[in-house]
Amino acid sequence: MADKEKTRVAVGIYGQTYTIVGTETSNHVRHVASLVDERMREISKRNPYLDSTKIAVLTAVNSVHDYLKLEETVQQLEEEVKKLKG
Amino acid sequence: MADKEKTRVAVGIYGQTYTIVGTETSNHVRHVASLVDERMREISKRNPYLDSTKIAVLTAVNSVHDYLKLEETVQQLEEEVKKLKG
Repeated sequence: MADKEKTRVAVGIYGQTYTIVGTETSNHVRHVASLVDERMREISKRNPYLDSTKIAVLTAVNSVHDYLKLEETVQQLEEEVKKLKG
Repeated sequence: MADKEKTRVAVGIYGQTYTIVGTETSNHVRHVASLVDERMREISKRNPYLDSTKIAVLTAVNSVHDYLKLEETVQQLEEEVKKLKG
Protein backbone atom coordinates (compact mmCIF):
# COMPACT_ATOMS: atom_id res chain seq x y z
CA MET A 1 0.00 0.00 0.00
CA ALA A 2 1.28 3.46 -0.86
CA ASP A 3 2.09 5.85 1.96
CA LYS A 4 -0.66 8.29 2.78
CA GLU A 5 0.05 11.65 1.26
CA LYS A 6 1.32 14.21 3.76
CA THR A 7 -0.70 17.36 4.25
CA ARG A 8 0.63 20.73 5.45
CA VAL A 9 -1.99 22.88 7.12
CA ALA A 10 -1.40 26.36 8.51
CA VAL A 11 -3.57 27.09 11.56
CA GLY A 12 -3.85 29.99 14.01
CA ILE A 13 -3.69 29.11 17.71
CA TYR A 14 -3.71 31.81 20.39
CA GLY A 15 -2.40 34.46 18.01
CA GLN A 16 0.41 32.36 16.48
CA THR A 17 0.54 30.49 13.19
CA TYR A 18 1.52 26.81 13.22
CA THR A 19 2.12 24.59 10.21
CA ILE A 20 0.93 21.10 11.07
CA VAL A 21 2.36 18.34 8.90
CA GLY A 22 0.69 14.95 8.90
CA THR A 23 -1.57 12.48 7.19
CA GLU A 24 -4.84 13.85 8.57
CA THR A 25 -7.32 15.86 6.49
CA SER A 26 -7.01 19.63 6.70
CA ASN A 27 -10.53 19.72 8.22
CA HIS A 28 -9.45 17.48 11.07
CA VAL A 29 -6.31 19.56 11.70
CA ARG A 30 -8.36 22.78 11.74
CA HIS A 31 -10.87 21.25 14.14
CA VAL A 32 -8.09 20.16 16.54
CA ALA A 33 -6.47 23.61 16.32
CA SER A 34 -9.74 25.39 17.06
CA LEU A 35 -10.31 23.20 20.13
CA VAL A 36 -6.79 23.96 21.43
CA ASP A 37 -7.28 27.68 20.75
CA GLU A 38 -10.63 27.65 22.58
CA ARG A 39 -9.19 25.81 25.60
CA MET A 40 -6.23 28.20 25.81
CA ARG A 41 -8.57 31.20 25.78
CA GLU A 42 -10.75 29.66 28.51
CA ILE A 43 -7.73 29.00 30.74
CA SER A 44 -6.38 32.48 30.08
CA LYS A 45 -9.75 34.02 31.01
CA ARG A 46 -9.75 32.21 34.36
CA ASN A 47 -6.03 32.97 34.96
CA PRO A 48 -5.28 36.31 33.31
CA TYR A 49 -1.82 36.52 34.92
CA LEU A 50 -0.45 33.37 33.23
CA ASP A 51 1.96 33.63 30.28
CA SER A 52 1.37 31.82 26.98
CA THR A 53 3.71 28.91 27.79
CA LYS A 54 1.94 28.16 31.06
CA ILE A 55 -1.48 28.45 29.40
CA ALA A 56 -0.35 26.03 26.68
CA VAL A 57 1.14 23.59 29.21
CA LEU A 58 -2.08 23.61 31.28
CA THR A 59 -4.08 23.04 28.08
CA ALA A 60 -1.87 20.02 27.37
CA VAL A 61 -2.36 18.81 30.98
CA ASN A 62 -6.16 19.07 30.65
CA SER A 63 -6.14 17.28 27.29
CA VAL A 64 -3.97 14.40 28.53
CA HIS A 65 -6.21 14.12 31.61
CA ASP A 66 -9.30 13.90 29.37
CA TYR A 67 -7.53 11.28 27.23
CA LEU A 68 -6.76 9.07 30.24
CA LYS A 69 -10.37 9.32 31.46
CA LEU A 70 -11.63 8.33 28.01
CA GLU A 71 -9.19 5.40 28.02
CA GLU A 72 -11.00 4.13 31.14
CA THR A 73 -14.30 4.34 29.22
CA VAL A 74 -12.74 2.33 26.37
CA GLN A 75 -11.59 -0.36 28.81
CA GLN A 76 -15.06 -0.59 30.38
CA LEU A 77 -16.71 -0.85 26.96
CA GLU A 78 -14.22 -3.50 25.83
CA GLU A 79 -15.02 -5.54 28.94
CA GLU A 80 -18.74 -5.17 28.27
CA VAL A 81 -18.28 -6.36 24.66
CA LYS A 82 -16.25 -9.33 25.89
CA LYS A 83 -18.94 -10.29 28.41
CA LEU A 84 -21.75 -9.91 25.86
CA LYS A 85 -19.83 -12.04 23.36
CA GLY A 86 -18.82 -14.64 25.94
CA MET B 1 -23.33 14.02 48.58
CA ALA B 2 -20.41 16.04 49.94
CA ASP B 3 -18.12 17.79 47.50
CA LYS B 4 -14.94 15.90 46.69
CA GLU B 5 -12.03 17.35 48.57
CA LYS B 6 -9.76 19.51 46.41
CA THR B 7 -6.13 18.49 46.09
CA ARG B 8 -3.22 20.80 45.31
CA VAL B 9 -0.31 19.04 43.66
CA ALA B 10 2.96 20.70 42.62
CA VAL B 11 4.47 19.10 39.52
CA GLY B 12 7.48 19.84 37.32
CA ILE B 13 6.85 20.09 33.59
CA TYR B 14 9.60 21.07 31.17
CA GLY B 15 11.62 22.83 33.86
CA GLN B 16 8.72 24.81 35.37
CA THR B 17 6.67 24.12 38.47
CA TYR B 18 2.88 24.04 38.20
CA THR B 19 0.38 23.74 41.02
CA ILE B 20 -2.57 21.71 39.78
CA VAL B 21 -5.76 22.12 41.79
CA GLY B 22 -8.53 19.58 41.36
CA THR B 23 -10.38 16.58 42.68
CA GLU B 24 -8.04 13.96 41.20
CA THR B 25 -5.56 11.95 43.29
CA SER B 26 -2.02 13.30 43.43
CA ASN B 27 -0.85 10.10 41.70
CA HIS B 28 -3.10 10.77 38.74
CA VAL B 29 -1.96 14.42 38.51
CA ARG B 30 1.71 13.35 38.63
CA HIS B 31 1.11 10.73 35.93
CA VAL B 32 -0.55 13.31 33.64
CA ALA B 33 2.27 15.80 34.28
CA SER B 34 4.95 13.22 33.48
CA LEU B 35 3.22 12.36 30.19
CA VAL B 36 3.05 16.05 29.20
CA ASP B 37 6.70 16.55 30.18
CA GLU B 38 7.73 13.49 28.14
CA ARG B 39 5.77 14.63 25.07
CA MET B 40 7.24 18.15 25.27
CA ARG B 41 10.77 16.73 25.41
CA GLU B 42 10.09 14.46 22.42
CA ILE B 43 8.76 17.38 20.34
CA SER B 44 11.67 19.58 21.40
CA LYS B 45 14.15 16.85 20.39
CA ARG B 46 12.64 16.67 16.91
CA ASN B 47 12.35 20.48 16.62
CA PRO B 48 15.23 21.98 18.60
CA TYR B 49 14.54 25.50 17.26
CA LEU B 50 11.05 25.78 18.77
CA ASP B 51 10.41 27.90 21.88
CA SER B 52 8.62 26.52 24.95
CA THR B 53 5.24 28.03 24.05
CA LYS B 54 5.23 26.42 20.60
CA ILE B 55 6.38 23.08 22.05
CA ALA B 56 3.56 23.25 24.61
CA VAL B 57 0.96 24.22 21.98
CA LEU B 58 2.04 21.33 19.71
CA THR B 59 1.84 18.98 22.71
CA ALA B 60 -1.72 20.17 23.28
CA VAL B 61 -2.49 19.71 19.56
CA ASN B 62 -1.20 16.12 19.65
CA SER B 63 -3.14 15.33 22.83
CA VAL B 64 -6.43 16.72 21.48
CA HIS B 65 -5.85 14.78 18.23
CA ASP B 66 -5.35 11.55 20.25
CA TYR B 67 -8.50 12.34 22.24
CA LEU B 68 -10.62 12.73 19.10
CA LYS B 69 -9.27 9.45 17.68
CA LEU B 70 -10.09 7.67 20.94
CA GLU B 71 -13.58 9.18 20.82
CA GLU B 72 -14.07 7.37 17.50
CA THR B 73 -13.07 4.11 19.20
CA VAL B 74 -15.64 4.80 21.96
CA GLN B 75 -18.37 5.37 19.36
CA GLN B 76 -17.50 2.12 17.56
CA LEU B 77 -17.53 0.17 20.84
CA GLU B 78 -20.84 1.74 21.88
CA GLU B 79 -22.36 0.67 18.57
CA GLU B 80 -20.99 -2.85 19.03
CA VAL B 81 -22.51 -3.04 22.54
CA LYS B 82 -25.84 -1.79 21.18
CA LYS B 83 -25.84 -4.45 18.42
CA LEU B 84 -24.86 -7.22 20.83
CA LYS B 85 -27.60 -6.21 23.26
CA GLY B 86 -30.21 -5.69 20.55
